[in-house]
Amino acid sequence: MLSRYFPILEWGCSYNGQTLSSDLMAAIIVTIMLIPQSLAYALLAGLPPVVGLYASILPLVAYAIFGTSRTLAVGPVAVVSLMTASAVGAVAPQGTAEYLEAAITLAALSGVMLFVLGVLRMGFLSNLLSHPVISGFITASGILIATSQLRHVLGVSAGGDTWPKMLGSLFAALPQVNPWTLAVGVPSVIFLFWVRKGLKPLLVKFGMSGKAADIAAKVGPVVAVALSIVAVMAFDLAGRGVNITGEIPQGLPPFAMPSTDLSLIRQLFVPALLISIIGFVESVSVAQTLAAKRRQRIAPDQELIGLGASNIASAFSGGYPVTGGFARSVVNFDAGAQTPAAGAFTAVGIAMASLFLTPLLFSLPIAVLAATIIVAVLALVDLKTPRQLWNYSKADFAAHVATIAITLLAGVEMGVIAGVSVGLLLYLWRASRPHAAIVGRVPETEHFRNVERHKVFTADHVLSIRIDEALTFLNARWLEEYVLEQVADRPKIRHVILMASAVNEIDASGLESLEAINHRLADADIRLHLSEVKGPVMDRLQRTHFIEELSGQVFLSQARAFAEALRDDGNDVEQPDDIARGLI
Amino acid sequence: MLSRYFPILEWGCSYNGQTLSSDLMAAIIVTIMLIPQSLAYALLAGLPPVVGLYASILPLVAYAIFGTSRTLAVGPVAVVSLMTASAVGAVAPQGTAEYLEAAITLAALSGVMLFVLGVLRMGFLSNLLSHPVISGFITASGILIATSQLRHVLGVSAGGDTWPKMLGSLFAALPQVNPWTLAVGVPSVIFLFWVRKGLKPLLVKFGMSGKAADIAAKVGPVVAVALSIVAVMAFDLAGRGVNITGEIPQGLPPFAMPSTDLSLIRQLFVPALLISIIGFVESVSVAQTLAAKRRQRIAPDQELIGLGASNIASAFSGGYPVTGGFARSVVNFDAGAQTPAAGAFTAVGIAMASLFLTPLLFSLPIAVLAATIIVAVLALVDLKTPRQLWNYSKADFAAHVATIAITLLAGVEMGVIAGVSVGLLLYLWRASRPHAAIVGRVPETEHFRNVERHKVFTADHVLSIRIDEALTFLNARWLEEYVLEQVADRPKIRHVILMASAVNEIDASGLESLEAINHRLADADIRLHLSEVKGPVMDRLQRTHFIEELSGQVFLSQARAFAEALRDDGNDVEQPDDIARGLI
Repeated sequence: MLSRYFPILEWGCSYNGQTLSSDLMAAIIVTIMLIPQSLAYALLAGLPPVVGLYASILPLVAYAIFGTSRTLAVGPVAVVSLMTASAVGAVAPQGTAEYLEAAITLAALSGVMLFVLGVLRMGFLSNLLSHPVISGFITASGILIATSQLRHVLGVSAGGDTWPKMLGSLFAALPQVNPWTLAVGVPSVIFLFWVRKGLKPLLVKFGMSGKAADIAAKVGPVVAVALSIVAVMAFDLAGRGVNITGEIPQGLPPFAMPSTDLSLIRQLFVPALLISIIGFVESVSVAQTLAAKRRQRIAPDQELIGLGASNIASAFSGGYPVTGGFARSVVNFDAGAQTPAAGAFTAVGIAMASLFLTPLLFSLPIAVLAATIIVAVLALVDLKTPRQLWNYSKADFAAHVATIAITLLAGVEMGVIAGVSVGLLLYLWRASRPHAAIVGRVPETEHFRNVERHKVFTADHVLSIRIDEALTFLNARWLEEYVLEQVADRPKIRHVILMASAVNEIDASGLESLEAINHRLADADIRLHLSEVKGPVMDRLQRTHFIEELSGQVFLSQARAFAEALRDDGNDVEQPDDIARGLI
Repeated sequence: MLSRYFPILEWGCSYNGQTLSSDLMAAIIVTIMLIPQSLAYALLAGLPPVVGLYASILPLVAYAIFGTSRTLAVGPVAVVSLMTASAVGAVAPQGTAEYLEAAITLAALSGVMLFVLGVLRMGFLSNLLSHPVISGFITASGILIATSQLRHVLGVSAGGDTWPKMLGSLFAALPQVNPWTLAVGVPSVIFLFWVRKGLKPLLVKFGMSGKAADIAAKVGPVVAVALSIVAVMAFDLAGRGVNITGEIPQGLPPFAMPSTDLSLIRQLFVPALLISIIGFVESVSVAQTLAAKRRQRIAPDQELIGLGASNIASAFSGGYPVTGGFARSVVNFDAGAQTPAAGAFTAVGIAMASLFLTPLLFSLPIAVLAATIIVAVLALVDLKTPRQLWNYSKADFAAHVATIAITLLAGVEMGVIAGVSVGLLLYLWRASRPHAAIVGRVPETEHFRNVERHKVFTADHVLSIRIDEALTFLNARWLEEYVLEQVADRPKIRHVILMASAVNEIDASGLESLEAINHRLADADIRLHLSEVKGPVMDRLQRTHFIEELSGQVFLSQARAFAEALRDDGNDVEQPDDIARGLI
């Protein structure tokens, strides 16, 4: 029971020397990869680079205690950093103490929300984000992020939180391009692209295993960082206008307090909720992918608690919103991490780095950090999906394209909100038009099939309708309209049989519609019958007056219902029992 | 084609002397009933009584042209009047020219919204309001309305737009009660209750037909109005502090212009949308009930256009938001109305009244109008529903009670919004946990049934899962979790068969989950198969790469899939063909 909320108790008890050495190995590799990433994503969030390091220490420890994935690596990630920049930029100017305080408050808010959602077991809320909406959002975010970082590669100042504004500001600043920055930035981008695409095949050719080559390619940015620091120092590039990181305060994360200013909290509420949901969805899908490979499990509601604890830890140690990252989790997994302890060891590694390594990063050019971001996020831009969606489902395509367009044109928050709204509206539209069919009996059997697709036996005074959906408020009105229209079209009808074999549920609205249909048909002197009602559905109906008030009967089988309705008419069929057995 | 948008063309062509006389008869009765109602509902909306008459002329003509119900009677109704008071009261003080202008603008806005929704065929949006939410909203509105009118019966001034505020203000004003007003108001309430409950049985006892007695009881308020006017004049009650209607401008509705002030329109936007949806839902359910009795049809999307035209007509003739009313439509129907021409004739009747009758209404006590409202709306308060819902469905009960509580405590707009939100959340929660079952083969048959309910044959290395729901984004994540958990629990599994006989749709998110499951199972060396995929679903899957990438096969029957999976293992069953035929 306790280990449900503290998964550390589960794996901690069987921890041994072998898992320790695997975890240590993975932690070293992830630490090396995470240092430039943390600095870069803090930059993307508009924060001092050291905040990226702070966000990569305690949150990892918190996740190791509360998280259920064995290999997920949490920390700053690109999309959440962009969302942070957008949310915090709306309440305070970048570079001020208020900006940093708002980022810390955002992490605390998001942490509390995730934690509360987890305790209330509300993980299902993330279902509101359909795959087309998420992938559209991530593609658009990738484009926004890459564009926002171009200014660092060009060495100009530009701004904007929507794509048109960013592009406009960038074009306006083109005359101010710093050639030295360009000379550092462009080769970095090219080098990092090559590391990503060309290095692995090369290493494999030289005999390295595929997995090792992958890991080597992932730590490539460290080489770029080291080379560029040497170049800055050798050629005094800082003196020639190349922006460098500058002094990074040495030491462990400070104790920080989120703001308790209610108006700030109110302003950050919606962004924090969106960051929580986007971060959760990203993180859970990474965690699930990795867990499945080793036939492990994750518990999504407990993941909410784990990510919540991480973000709260981040806030109180001067960090900003974090979540599980894809690239670093894959590296962690491939490097052999066995338990979340690998994350705790990574935290120790990053803490060491912020204690001892920061002076070395003084001369690191911002352009190189921007290059690592650009190369990382362009991998998120997915141009194949729109075409696939177009072929597969126009509704999903619409949600995807709307999300991309609105994210680019109106920013990340509106993009998520619009994507969810469009997706829900399309879903409700479809749910309000479920499938139903007029059925007739396949001759000489007891089977009933759609009259439009099969040659079946029907009668003028009996209408059999098969409903292929649960009856809920979303389609209750449709049901009334559908049944009454069918009856209005057929003046000879005296019996309507609703075949409910596929009706998994009838909610109160569905029940009320059935009652209305029953009364309205009775007014027109038509009896309503039900057939093949599922057990649990029937149990609930029997707790109401509906069955008593029903003008007709409830039959166990559609064949029986049809036969009885035929017989009632006193029509010219002579062997009612044969009808009942389905022989006509 | 044209008659789809102008239903008048349909019934107009077969209009004859007999329908004319039926329609005229109905129009006279509805006119008599509508005069006090229009005055009273305008009072409830905080508007001059004459505005109620204006809202009962042109809107009826517009509906006669565009509406599809033969017998629906549109005009001011209680709930929409309350919502109007709440929306307009938030932007202008009652009794001012701005208040009236805002009410007119609200009608125009609501009319345009209804019209646009109709042209876009978005009637399905009204499905967001489940029956428990609507009935909760109407019950709470009834309580709010009756409470708000008590002040007129007591002859005090009191206010408030939520229940606690209304009650508080009423109690505070108790010392100022005017005894003469009370002497008019209380007997009126009692008389009107008796007319509603006791008059009909009495009339039937004296030999009147049930239907005629019903109609007589519905026009009862006219008697109260007439008697009270006589009493006011006889005893000079106006001089003793009884509020009277006073001078009502004589003449036809003026030409009015809605405001084009954008900030006003922005403030009224959400209330107008809520009024439109509530009005539409009320109106359509009345229209459907009546249409079904005569086996007629209504077209909900065209109803949006009809109601939109009515509200636009109301705005331009100095009225306020209108919709189809229940009581008056029933009277119209029972009095024998055959076509919407009855509505047009009613409009002529009301126009006559506002031309010639208004001087007679000078001495009408406000307390009597309030009494007609109180008696009418208390019939809306439904105390049986909560109990029924509790028995039938806890989720629906929660939505109902939340709607009532929030409407009473936070007002009508928040009530509708909260009700819709709670209903949707509960729906999404259920939709994210669909039903699925592990199935096994019923011995000696080809049927597969739930292993938990039936004694069936299964194999350790084959897992058959039947999914009882369409795969959409709402349950895509659930599907991944469910399948991977089942597999994680059963280490011997080598084949997973998804039995898709009840899967009516797979959207892009569902497809992506299937792909993810396929890849994750492949990583764990498990093959994924599908069986009994429906035709249309398979057609779409074949437009993707999923079928090629599937580690297993797609089988037409579950029996075949199971048999093949068994055979593959090379286990000790000796006659694979017997297995395939389901004989083991």
